Amino acid sequence: MIEKTALPQSKSIMITTDYSLGVLQYIPFFYVIWSDDLLSASEISVVKKTIELDASLSTQEKQQLYLWLDKGNPPEDEEIKTWKQLVSASRVKLIETDTHPLTSFSQRMGNAHCAGCEFNDHLKHIEINLGIQPNHYNHLFDVEVVHERTSSLYDPHNLDEILKGSHADIVDSFRKFLDNPLFSWHIQRDKEVYRNRVLKQVSLLGEKGYGAMAYPKEFGGKNDMPGYASIFEHLMFVDGSLAVKFGVQFGLFGGSIQKLGTAKHHDLYLKDTVKANLLGCFAMTETGHGSNVRGIKTTATYDAPSDSIFVHTPGKNDNKEYIGNALHSKMATVFAQLIVNGKNEGVHAVLVPLRNEKHEVLEGITVEDNGYKLGLNGVDNGKIWFDQVRVPRANLLDKYGEIRNDGSYFSKIKNPNKRFFTMLGTLVGGRICVARGALGGAKMALTIAVKYALGRRQFNDSIKMQEDLIMDYPTHQLRLTPAVAGTYVYHFALEAMMNQYRDPSVPDKRKIETQVAGLKSIITWFANSTIQECREACGGKGYLLENRLADLRTDVDIFTTFEGDNTVLLQLAAKGILSDFKAEFNSAGFASVLKLLQSQLSDKLTVINPLYSNKVDAEHLYNPKFHMHAFNYRTRRLTYTLAMRIRSYIKKGVPSYQAFLKVQTHLLALGKAYSVELAYFEYHKVCQNVEDTKYRGLLEKLGALYALDQIHLDAIWFLEQGYIGGNKSKAIRQRVERLCSELRPHIEVLVDGFGIPEHCITAPIAQ
Amino acid sequence: MIEKTALPQSKSIMITTDYSLGVLQYIPFFYVIWSDDLLSASEISVVKKTIELDASLSTQEKQQLYLWLDKGNPPEDEEIKTWKQLVSASRVKLIETDTHPLTSFSQRMGNAHCAGCEFNDHLKHIEINLGIQPNHYNHLFDVEVVHERTSSLYDPHNLDEILKGSHADIVDSFRKFLDNPLFSWHIQRDKEVYRNRVLKQVSLLGEKGYGAMAYPKEFGGKNDMPGYASIFEHLMFVDGSLAVKFGVQFGLFGGSIQKLGTAKHHDLYLKDTVKANLLGCFAMTETGHGSNVRGIKTTATYDAPSDSIFVHTPGKNDNKEYIGNALHSKMATVFAQLIVNGKNEGVHAVLVPLRNEKHEVLEGITVEDNGYKLGLNGVDNGKIWFDQVRVPRANLLDKYGEIRNDGSYFSKIKNPNKRFFTMLGTLVGGRICVARGALGGAKMALTIAVKYALGRRQFNDSIKMQEDLIMDYPTHQLRLTPAVAGTYVYHFALEAMMNQYRDPSVPDKRKIETQVAGLKSIITWFANSTIQECREACGGKGYLLENRLADLRTDVDIFTTFEGDNTVLLQLAAKGILSDFKAEFNSAGFASVLKLLQSQLSDKLTVINPLYSNKVDAEHLYNPKFHMHAFNYRTRRLTYTLAMRIRSYIKKGVPSYQAFLKVQTHLLALGKAYSVELAYFEYHKVCQNVEDTKYRGLLEKLGALYALDQIHLDAIWFLEQGYIGGNKSKAIRQRVERLCSELRPHIEVLVDGFGIPEHCITAPIAQ
Repeated sequence: MIEKTALPQSKSIMITTDYSLGVLQYIPFFYVIWSDDLLSASEISVVKKTIELDASLSTQEKQQLYLWLDKGNPPEDEEIKTWKQLVSASRVKLIETDTHPLTSFSQRMGNAHCAGCEFNDHLKHIEINLGIQPNHYNHLFDVEVVHERTSSLYDPHNLDEILKGSHADIVDSFRKFLDNPLFSWHIQRDKEVYRNRVLKQVSLLGEKGYGAMAYPKEFGGKNDMPGYASIFEHLMFVDGSLAVKFGVQFGLFGGSIQKLGTAKHHDLYLKDTVKANLLGCFAMTETGHGSNVRGIKTTATYDAPSDSIFVHTPGKNDNKEYIGNALHSKMATVFAQLIVNGKNEGVHAVLVPLRNEKHEVLEGITVEDNGYKLGLNGVDNGKIWFDQVRVPRANLLDKYGEIRNDGSYFSKIKNPNKRFFTMLGTLVGGRICVARGALGGAKMALTIAVKYALGRRQFNDSIKMQEDLIMDYPTHQLRLTPAVAGTYVYHFALEAMMNQYRDPSVPDKRKIETQVAGLKSIITWFANSTIQECREACGGKGYLLENRLADLRTDVDIFTTFEGDNTVLLQLAAKGILSDFKAEFNSAGFASVLKLLQSQLSDKLTVINPLYSNKVDAEHLYNPKFHMHAFNYRTRRLTYTLAMRIRSYIKKGVPSYQAFLKVQTHLLALGKAYSVELAYFEYHKVCQNVEDTKYRGLLEKLGALYALDQIHLDAIWFLEQGYIGGNKSKAIRQRVERLCSELRPHIEVLVDGFGIPEHCITAPIAQ
Repeated sequence: MIEKTALPQSKSIMITTDYSLGVLQYIPFFYVIWSDDLLSASEISVVKKTIELDASLSTQEKQQLYLWLDKGNPPEDEEIKTWKQLVSASRVKLIETDTHPLTSFSQRMGNAHCAGCEFNDHLKHIEINLGIQPNHYNHLFDVEVVHERTSSLYDPHNLDEILKGSHADIVDSFRKFLDNPLFSWHIQRDKEVYRNRVLKQVSLLGEKGYGAMAYPKEFGGKNDMPGYASIFEHLMFVDGSLAVKFGVQFGLFGGSIQKLGTAKHHDLYLKDTVKANLLGCFAMTETGHGSNVRGIKTTATYDAPSDSIFVHTPGKNDNKEYIGNALHSKMATVFAQLIVNGKNEGVHAVLVPLRNEKHEVLEGITVEDNGYKLGLNGVDNGKIWFDQVRVPRANLLDKYGEIRNDGSYFSKIKNPNKRFFTMLGTLVGGRICVARGALGGAKMALTIAVKYALGRRQFNDSIKMQEDLIMDYPTHQLRLTPAVAGTYVYHFALEAMMNQYRDPSVPDKRKIETQVAGLKSIITWFANSTIQECREACGGKGYLLENRLADLRTDVDIFTTFEGDNTVLLQLAAKGILSDFKAEFNSAGFASVLKLLQSQLSDKLTVINPLYSNKVDAEHLYNPKFHMHAFNYRTRRLTYTLAMRIRSYIKKGVPSYQAFLKVQTHLLALGKAYSVELAYFEYHKVCQNVEDTKYRGLLEKLGALYALDQIHLDAIWFLEQGYIGGNKSKAIRQRVERLCSELRPHIEVLVDGFGIPEHCITAPIAQ
C-alpha cells in the first residue's frame, strides 16, 4: 500500500490510492482499454502476455490485472470512473512526443504516488502491440496534453522516394524547373488572357524538351513514358489547364503522328511538334457522337484524279467538338470515315492544316470557340467544321491503312474491326495519364485540406480551453484518411500499369487496355469525390478560388468524361472480363463475348464458411489475404451471374444488343469490382517489395484501410451474398474508423509524402 | 387451328402457327413476361385472374396458358424463342401512343393470322394491373416501334398546380415578372460587372415589393413567408447569385432588424430595407469561428459615460468573413459579445453603419473583398474588421436583451443559453429557404438533363438503325429518375415545414428548428449530388457554362456550408432527437441530453419477424406502410443504440464533450435517418390529400421510388440489423430499377411539372 499522505512533487501532486504500485502503473492502460471499448479477443491476448512476462508484478497483482481482462465480466463502471479520477488527479502531463507516450505517462503517474520508484518499462509492449496512439486516449483524461505538430515516426522524404520509384531524377529536376514565375498560380477569369499564358507555359515546356519526354531519341526525346506521366501529374500541381493543353499537344496530337503515321510524317512534323513549334489538335469527338467513335460522320474521301483526300462535315451535328488547342493550332489530326473508290474503309486519321502562317483560318474550315466551361478555361476548346477541305494523299496517317499509288486501299490488318481497335489502342497511354492527372489533383486537394485541418481549431467543451484541431474530429478523419489511403493505392496501381504497358515481352495489349479503361474510371471518380470532400472539409475557405480547391474541383470534373466516358469505359472493361480479355477491346463485343460464354460458364466459387463470414478479429480484418479473397470473390461471382443472365436472355431470343442493355448496371458493377481488385493487387505487390520494414508497415496499413473501406462501401453486396455477416460488416466499419485514428499522427507525413513542391502549395490555408 | 396458308394483309403478313387464336393473342404478353423475368408471385395472380375471366377462351386454351404460368416449371427457352419469332414475323407495328399498346399490338398480331377475327379486349387488364409500359418491352420484339415524344397520360400543368399549392397566384405573377431582359441569364466572368448587375436585379425586386413579401403589411409586405420561399426558389432559376444576394438583403439583414430589433428599429429602417434603398449585411461568421457562433470574438462594449457601444475586432482571425453584400452595404447587423459593466452578456446583434452617403467606408471600419469563389461570383462577399467603432446605444437590436437608460443590462430571458438560442431560432426561416433554393437548383438541373436525354441519341446495335435515346438506357434512368422522385418528396416536405413554422398554434418552435436543421442538410447534399449527376449525364455539353449546369453546380455547392454547416446541423438535430426536442436547440446540449437519457432508455422495438424481413412481393415493397416502418425502425434503433453508447461512456467517467465526439458518426447517421423519415412522412400526408386519383397514383409511385431508393442506399445498415434479408435487399434494388423504367414515359411531364418558366430554360441543350 502506498502512503496516504505524501509530499508534493514537481508539478504533480500526491494523491491517495489503494492500488499497489505494480497495479497502479497499469491503470492508465486499463482505463483507455475499457472506456474506449478497445479490446477484441486477439488484443486481450496481447495485454495478457505483457502481464505474464512482467517480472516486476507479484502473483497477486497479476491475478488482479487478469480479472480486469475478462470481457464476459468487465470491470464495473464505478471502478473505471475511479481509475479516471486517479489519473486526472495526478496532474501528470501527457507528452505526445514521447517514444511511448502512454508508458511514460503511466510511469510518471506512478512516480506521483511513489517518488523515486522504479519505472516499469515493460508496459511499452502493450502500447506497441495494440498500436494505440495518443489521439486514441489523450481526450479521455482531464490532463494537460503536450502536442507537437508532427510526432510521426516517419519522414515524408522516404515516402516520396518510394512514390517516385525509378524516375526520381526526372521528377526532382522537374520540380526545380517549376520554381519559375511563369508557373506561379494565380486566379484567371478572362479566357483569352488565361489561354495565352498557358500557351506560353506549353511553349516553354516544349522548348526545354519536356514535350519530347516520351518520344524516341531521334526526335529529341528520352523514350520515357513513365517520366512523361510523372511530369503530366506535376503539371496538375501548377494548373489543370496547363496539364490538359500539354497532353493535347504532346500526347494526343504528337502521339497520333507518331503512332498512326509513318516515317514521312515523323520526319516532317515530329521535331516541330515536340518543341511546340507546330501546334496541333486531336479532332476525334463529334457533337452528335460523343463516345461512339465508330459512328463518327466526318468523311475523308479519296479523289483519284486529283490524288487528294477531301475532308468533309456532312450534317449539322457532325462537327468536331471540345477539341483542345483548336484556337491555337496550325494543324489537326482529323478522325473520319475513309472512303476509297466509293467504299467506306472505316475510321482513319488525316492531317489537316487549319491555319496559315498569319494564323488565318484556311478555306473550307470553320472554327468556333466552345466558350467558357466549368473549368479548364485556360484550354482553347473549340468546334471545327470542314467543307470539302482538300489535303494531299500523303496526309493520311497510314500506319494501319494506306492508299497506294494506284489509288487502291491497303491494310495489313484485313479485319476492319481489328484495324479500328488497333488504332484506338494507341490511346491507352493517354488514359493512364488522365488517371494520373486526376490523382495529382486529389493529392493537391488532400495536401491543402489536411494542412488546413491541422491548423484550424473549432469548438470545444468549455470557452476557456483551447478549441480542438478539426483533424482530431472522427468525422473529419473519416472524410480525409481513406482518401489518402486510396491515393497511395492508385498511385502504385497506375505505375504498375505503365510498366506493363511498356513491357515489350507482352505484345498483346488487349488485357492492359481493358484494365486501364477500368482504372481510369474508378480513379477519376475517386479524384472528384476526394476533391469535393476536401472542399467541404475546408468550409467557406475551400470555396474561395485563392485556395485552389475550387479550380481543382472544376478542372478534374471533366476527367470523368474525356478520353472515354467512365460509364462507357466500364462497360468495355466488363466485356473484356467476360471474354477473358480475348475480345477486341472497344468493340461492341457481343459476338465474341457470347461465343465465349457458351463454354466457360461454371461457378467455381466455394461456398463461404459461416465461420469465415463472421470472423471479426483484427488480425483477420487487417490481413491482405482476406482483402484479396473478398475482392476476387466479388469479381468472380459478378462475372458468373452476369454471364448467366446474358445467356439466359439470348436463349430466349432477346436480341444481343438489348440483352447487354438489360444488364448495364451489372456490367458497371463488374467493371468497378474488377478495377478495385486490380488496384489492390498491384498495390500489394509493391508493398511486398518495399525493403524498409517500417515504411512497408505503414503502406500496408494504408492498404488495409483502402481495402476495408472498399468492402464497406460495397457491404450491401457482400451482405446480400452472405459473404460477410452483419457483425462482420459492423466490425469492418469500426476498423475503418480505428485505422483512421491510428493514422492520425502520420497524416501530415502522408500528404507531404506526395512530394508536391512547396512553390506549388500557394493556397493561403495550407500555409 | 389457323390456316397454314393465308392472304397477305395490309402492311402485315400472314404467318403460320400451331397456336389457336385465343392463345396466340396472349403470346406477346407471355413473351414479355418470361423474357424479362417480370413475374413475381403477386403478379402471376394478376395474369391468372385475367385468363380465368376471359370468356373468349376455351377450357383447353386456359389450361395451356396456366401451364405457362408455373414459375417452378417455366416454358422452355426454345418455346419462348418461338414466340419471339412469331411476333417479329408478324411485322405488326408497336404504337406506343395507343391507350393499351401491348393489348392493341396483340390484337393486331392476331389479326395478321386471322383477318377480321374479334379483338380480345379483355387482355388489357394484364397490361393495367402489371403496370407494364412500352419501354419494358418495345426492344424485345424486332418490330417497328412508333414512338411519340410524350406519351404520358399526365399533364405537367396539373402537377405544377399541386406543387404551387396555395400560393399559385404569387408564383404565376412572379414567373411573368421574370420575363424581363434584366433577368435573362448570360455568362458572367468579371465579378464587378456581375455584382453590379445582380445589385440592379435586387433593387428592382425591392422596388416591386418582392423584398417585402414576408414582412408585415405596415412595411409594405404581405406577411407571406411561403410566398417568399417560392420567390426565393424561382430566383435560383434566374441566377444563384441573385437568390443569395436577395436572401442576404431581405431575409438576413431585414430579418434581423425585424426579429431581433424593436419598434424603433422597425420604424427607422425597415421600409428602406425592404425597398432595397438601405442595403445591409448580416455579419455573423468570423474567420476563426465558422460554425461556432457562440464562440465569436467580436466585442460590443457598452460605455456608460458616452452612452455608446464600441464594436471591436480583437484578434487577427476574429474578423467577419464571407459576409454577403459587404461591398454594397451601408449598414451591417453585427453579432458580437455584448459587454455591459464589464460583464459578458453573450452574443447580441448591433446595427453598425459601414459607409456614408458617398459610399466611403467609415472610420474604424475595414472591408476587404473575399475575391473570386467557386461560384456565386455575383455576390459581393467580404471580410470586415472593426476598430473600436462607436455606435449609439439605440443601435443594439434589443428585443431579447436591452441596455436600459440607467446603463444596466436587462433581458426577459434570464438564462443566457436560452436567450442565445431564441435569437438564433430566428434563422430557421432562412434555413427553409436555403434548402428550397438548393432544391430549385436541382429542379433546374434535372429539367435540363432530362430534356437533353430525350433529344440525344447514342450507340445502337447496327449502324443503320436509329441510335437510342440516352434516356432509354437503364443506367441513365437510374441516374436521373430517383433524383426526380426525391425532388418531389423534398418539395412537399419543405412546404409542410414552412406551414408548421408559421402555425401560431405551435409557439414552441424547438422541434421545428431541429427538423429544419436536418432537412436543410440532407436536401442541400441531395441537390449537390443531383446537379453533379446531371452535369455528368450531359457529358461534355454539361461542362459548358452556356448550359447552366456548371453554374448551378458551383453556386449550390456552398449551400452545404452556409446558414449552418451540414455536419454541425445534423449533430444538433441528433441531439434534439435524443432529448425528445426538449433541449435547447443549437446548445452544446450535453447536459439536457444526458439528463433525459437517464430515464428514457428502453428499446421498444419489436423483434423483426423473419417472414417480414424476407417479404419481397411488389405489393409489400410499394406499400407506404413498409416504407414508414423501415424508416421509423431505423430512427428508433439508432436513437436507442446511440443513447446506450453515450450513457456507457459517461458512466465510465469519459467527459461528456468527448463522449459526444466519440459518437459523432453515429450522431450524423441518426440526423440523416430522422430527416429522411420526416421528409417521407410529410410527403405521404400530402399525397393522401391529393384528390385526383390519377395524380395521387403518380405521386405515390414517386414516393415509393424515393423510399426504396433510400432504403437501398442504407441497405448495409438494414442488412446488418437483420431488418431485411439478402433477397429482400436484392428485390428492393430491382424494384428501384423497375420503377425508373415505369416512370420513363412520364419523365418529361415530371420535370415540366416543376413549372420552371420557359424564359428561364435558356440552356441550348434543353431546347
